[in-house]
Amino acid sequence: MGMHELLILSRHATAYLNLIRAADPPDLRITATSDPEAAVWGPDCDIVFGEPSLVSRVIMRIAGLRWVQSTWAGVEPLLDPGLRRDYVLTNARGVFGGLMSEYVFVYLLAHERRIFQRHAMQAACQWDNTPPGTLRGKTIGLMGVGSIGAGLARTARHFGMTVRGYTRSSETCKDVDVYYHGSELTAFAADLDYLVNVLPNTADTRCIVDAPLLAALPQRAVFVNVGRGSAVDEAALAGALRAGKIAGAVLDVFHDEPLPPGHVLWHVPNVRITSHTAAPSVPEDIAGVFLENYRRLLKGDELNCRVDFERGY
Amino acid sequence: MGMHELLILSRHATAYLNLIRAADPPDLRITATSDPEAAVWGPDCDIVFGEPSLVSRVIMRIAGLRWVQSTWAGVEPLLDPGLRRDYVLTNARGVFGGLMSEYVFVYLLAHERRIFQRHAMQAACQWDNTPPGTLRGKTIGLMGVGSIGAGLARTARHFGMTVRGYTRSSETCKDVDVYYHGSELTAFAADLDYLVNVLPNTADTRCIVDAPLLAALPQRAVFVNVGRGSAVDEAALAGALRAGKIAGAVLDVFHDEPLPPGHVLWHVPNVRITSHTAAPSVPEDIAGVFLENYRRLLKGDELNCRVDFERGY
Repeated sequence: MGMHELLILSRHATAYLNLIRAADPPDLRITATSDPEAAVWGPDCDIVFGEPSLVSRVIMRIAGLRWVQSTWAGVEPLLDPGLRRDYVLTNARGVFGGLMSEYVFVYLLAHERRIFQRHAMQAACQWDNTPPGTLRGKTIGLMGVGSIGAGLARTARHFGMTVRGYTRSSETCKDVDVYYHGSELTAFAADLDYLVNVLPNTADTRCIVDAPLLAALPQRAVFVNVGRGSAVDEAALAGALRAGKIAGAVLDVFHDEPLPPGHVLWHVPNVRITSHTAAPSVPEDIAGVFLENYRRLLKGDELNCRVDFERGY
Repeated sequence: MGMHELLILSRHATAYLNLIRAADPPDLRITATSDPEAAVWGPDCDIVFGEPSLVSRVIMRIAGLRWVQSTWAGVEPLLDPGLRRDYVLTNARGVFGGLMSEYVFVYLLAHERRIFQRHAMQAACQWDNTPPGTLRGKTIGLMGVGSIGAGLARTARHFGMTVRGYTRSSETCKDVDVYYHGSELTAFAADLDYLVNVLPNTADTRCIVDAPLLAALPQRAVFVNVGRGSAVDEAALAGALRAGKIAGAVLDVFHDEPLPPGHVLWHVPNVRITSHTAAPSVPEDIAGVFLENYRRLLKGDELNCRVDFERGY
């Protein structure tokens, strides 16, 4: 095995460069930049590590490209049909489970415990001993049960919830009580307390959360979106919230980000908007994903978190 | 074994009567009331099930008293030295772990995720992508590791926290990483991210959270009290919050409840007041504790959750 050359192309290029140098991986030359226009690489460059939106702007020009490690879970910019697919693409889907669980469950618990209402009562110096609800015995429906969904399922079980999973076909997570697939979306939604979308952006998932799905939810249900903004028909969601057809929504992702100032979702009742902060990439974690995959590359093992270009995740 | 007679004495007497009758326990006559002045019982009455504050008003007059099952975890009214102690006292400490975990962790996560600040930004239609903190890698200190503390330790572990336990002597919970006892309170508090009091009210725990303990905490620490209000020197806590010596407090219990309108704690910064709602008794759960203990009584087994009158819990 000969030398490899890595191009780091990321807004956090300095952090990644330092983290990877500190690990001193064998047989690896490294260049790094935060600007694709300023990127330089040698003739042996075979690996790129960075944000898909930046990486997509250089991959056509890297002759010896063999592997791209994305710093994100979502890799849409690299799935453009005009781009090459003659390399191994891996994403960082394995590292967001913990943060996503913290995000989803703080809002589920906040809803049960009425913490915003209690806060308002406190501001008025009012002793408010309205009893809280509990997650125990409630039902959560997860749209998408990959590594993030599996983390959510595990936390849901920890709090005594019943867990439904909606997937294309896989049924591998042991913390899911019952699975639904394909056309069973309405049955999946019936009688849920919480519906959480963690699906990736693919042709099949665009606007999957639409008026019929929202209508299938009970009035007490809360919808949480930590997947992709494109999964939601935002007009239908705004309508359901305005009409009180569901109890609330917690939205981290949107069709257009930042959410434009005049957007209807800023002004509907019972919505929480969290500005794409659910699970920011932690450079230490993402660098760890790269380093583990680089070790596998050297050994000739299959890389972790490989993306199927056709499926899109 | 002959007949037993049960007196139910509770604000929820109707619910408990129906739940216990539905289980149809053998060899048991039942009377029930919500008013100790109106309570009647036959000469064979040997069991009382109810709130300690009500039960304390009748136990001196029940000649054949053998066992009292409290509907609460705290049994202070029955520990009055003027009252009898010639019976078995059991409490309901085993059933609050789940609700207490939901309470403590929604506020820990709310602090890390800045959900109140995000809510304020949303009200101003501001896209606020300030990154969140995480519980992973943080350290929680539990004052008291009985069944409630063990539940908190388990949830803390689930979220990747390091767990310290401060107890009189026991070291039985496997989810605690390191134990402290007795005079080690300052060492226990050093470098904690979260300090959670779940101690019962005893002579040893009165005002245990005092100025020296608060001063031993780092400035980033948040204090949570789900134990007893008597455990806290409230003036010292208000002073620490006013001076910014700790980052915040989440308080469910107080010396005087309801917290009086003019009380200083309504007006200090970074405090959340939740009006003794952390873990309300759920009649189904508490009735289950009684029924299990009644089965044990009939079999001659030791009862669960027995209170030591000397220790006070």
